Amino acid sequence: MVYDLIIIGGGPAGLSAAIYAVRYGLNTLVLEKGFVIGQISTTGEVENYPGFISINGIDLMEKFSEHAKAAGVVVESRDVLGVRSESDLKIISTDVGDLETFTLIIATGANPKKLGVPGEEEFRGKGVSYCATCDGPFFKGRNVIVVGGGESAIEDALILSDLAASVCVVHRRDELRASKMLQDRAFAKPNIEFSWNTELEEIIGDSIVREVVLRNTESGETWTSPIDGVFIYVGVEPNTEFIDVDKNDYGFIVTNEKMATSEAGIFAAGDCRTSILRQVITAASDGVIAAFEAYEYVSAMKHKAE
Amino acid sequence: MVYDLIIIGGGPAGLSAAIYAVRYGLNTLVLEKGFVIGQISTTGEVENYPGFISINGIDLMEKFSEHAKAAGVVVESRDVLGVRSESDLKIISTDVGDLETFTLIIATGANPKKLGVPGEEEFRGKGVSYCATCDGPFFKGRNVIVVGGGESAIEDALILSDLAASVCVVHRRDELRASKMLQDRAFAKPNIEFSWNTELEEIIGDSIVREVVLRNTESGETWTSPIDGVFIYVGVEPNTEFIDVDKNDYGFIVTNEKMATSEAGIFAAGDCRTSILRQVITAASDGVIAAFEAYEYVSAMKHKAE
Repeated sequence: MVYDLIIIGGGPAGLSAAIYAVRYGLNTLVLEKGFVIGQISTTGEVENYPGFISINGIDLMEKFSEHAKAAGVVVESRDVLGVRSESDLKIISTDVGDLETFTLIIATGANPKKLGVPGEEEFRGKGVSYCATCDGPFFKGRNVIVVGGGESAIEDALILSDLAASVCVVHRRDELRASKMLQDRAFAKPNIEFSWNTELEEIIGDSIVREVVLRNTESGETWTSPIDGVFIYVGVEPNTEFIDVDKNDYGFIVTNEKMATSEAGIFAAGDCRTSILRQVITAASDGVIAAFEAYEYVSAMKHKAE
Repeated sequence: MVYDLIIIGGGPAGLSAAIYAVRYGLNTLVLEKGFVIGQISTTGEVENYPGFISINGIDLMEKFSEHAKAAGVVVESRDVLGVRSESDLKIISTDVGDLETFTLIIATGANPKKLGVPGEEEFRGKGVSYCATCDGPFFKGRNVIVVGGGESAIEDALILSDLAASVCVVHRRDELRASKMLQDRAFAKPNIEFSWNTELEEIIGDSIVREVVLRNTESGETWTSPIDGVFIYVGVEPNTEFIDVDKNDYGFIVTNEKMATSEAGIFAAGDCRTSILRQVITAASDGVIAAFEAYEYVSAMKHKAE
C-alpha cells in the first residue's frame, strides 16, 4: 500500500498535521517511536496554549492524542532509519521494513542539550527550564540564573529580566558569543549580572530548586548560591539526521512559509524547522499548514497521473 | 499613559497575542468593539482546534477569553477610527478619544461576504458554511452545493469532492474565474457537476438545511433541489480600512513571517493578513509570533531611548 501522507513525529506538530490530513481525506500514518512525543510533555505546567488556562504538559499531549484518535488518526511505533525518493514516491526505511508514501511531513522536534549536572533531570519543570517564553512568568519577582553566553541565552536573559527580580548569567568564558546588540541591552539592564568563568556544578532542592553549586573555572573555587530558577542554554539539537534536505548550520530544516523543504513532497513542521518561536501553538499551526500543502500536493499529483 | 502594545481585535489572534504579551511583561490593551470577536464564534461546531475534540465556536472563544482574563489581559470596548504615527508613537483614534502606544497588532479578522438570500443567516453552522477546511468533514458522504466560480470556490469544491458524495458548483456565469489548473482538476472529478448561469435564491430547512431554490439567470426558470450543505464563496472582506499599511488587492495586510507590516512597530495577525490558511490555530499562532516581535521591538526601542 502507498500512503498519501506519512508524518514522522507524534508531538503537537505531527498530531495537528494528522488531524487535518485525515479531515482532508488523506490516507495518513503517524510514526512516533524513537522521537520525543513533544518536548512539552517534559516541561511541567503549561499556561500559554490558548484555550487552556493551565495544564500539565503531559495532560496537554494526552488531549492532542485523544483528539487525533477521535479524528481517526493511526499511529505506529517505528524507528525511522532513512528516507529516499523513487520517482513520485518517498520510501521510508524503518526498523521493521519499508513504507511507501506520496508525501512526508517531518515533525521530529528538537531537544535542548543537557548540561549533564546532578539535579538537572530531577528538577526539570520544578525550577529547571530551557525556555523563558514558556516558563519565565512562573518566576515573576524571583531570582534566576541563566547558563550560557550565546544568542538564546542572552535573548532569554533579557526576557527574564522583565519578569524576575534578578537574573545572573553564568558563563564559563569571560565574554559572550551573543550579538553586540543583545549584549548591549543585557549590560544596560540593572537587574542582570554576570558571573564570568563560572560553571554550574549541581542543582539542589527539595520539591523545587533551592540552590546551585557554582565553580570558578580559573581559581577552582566553588560556592553555593540560593536560587529559584535555572534556565539552561547550551544548544538545541533538532532530530533531523535521518533526512537529506536543506538545513541550516545547526541542523534545523529550512522551509518556506508553506512548510515546504528543498525536496518536493517533503514538508517540515514544528521545532525541527527554522522557526521564529518554538511553542506548542506555533508547532500545531505549522503542522496544520503542512497538512494542507501535503493535501494540495497529493491532489495535484493524482490529477496529473490520471 | 503610553501603552507598550495595543491589540485591535479580540478574536483568536488578538487574545493569543495578548496572553503572550502580558506574559512578556508588556503593558497591553486589547480593543474589541466594532470588530468580530472571531469568525469562529459564528460557525457552530469546531472539531479542528487541536486539544478539543469537539467544541462549539462560541464556547471555544469563551475559553480564549477566560484564558486571557486569567493571564491579566485588559479588554476595552472602543471603535477604532484610525491610526497615525508620531515619531516613536502610534496614536490610535477611537470613538472616545486617542490612545498612545509604542507598538500595535492588528487582529481585526475578515468576514465572508454574504449572498443575502433568505435562510443564509438562519442556517449558518447548520448546513451553511464559508470554509471547506473547517466544515467539510461534517458532510462526509452527503450532497453539497458550492456557490461561486472563483479560486476559493473551486479550491474548496475540490476539498469537498474528496469528502462528500457529490458536489454541485452553482455559478451565475457560464465559465469559472478560477485558475486553469484548478478548473482542470475540478472538471476531471467524477463527483463534481456544474450548474451554469444559476443563482441561489433561497435556503430552506428545519433544524438543518434540507433544500435550496435555484434560478436559471437566462430562462428565469426556478427549481428546488434537496441538499445537505451549502458552501458560499462570493468574497472575503478583511476589516482593514482604518489602517494605512501595505495591503494586497483584496485589502489583506501584507506581512513577513514575523508578522511585521510595512510600517515599523505595526504587526498584523490572523485572518486580516495575507495568510495561507485561515483557521483558529493558525490565527492564534500568528498572534503569538506578533506578540514576541512586538516585545522585541519595544525592548530595543526602550534600550535606545535610555
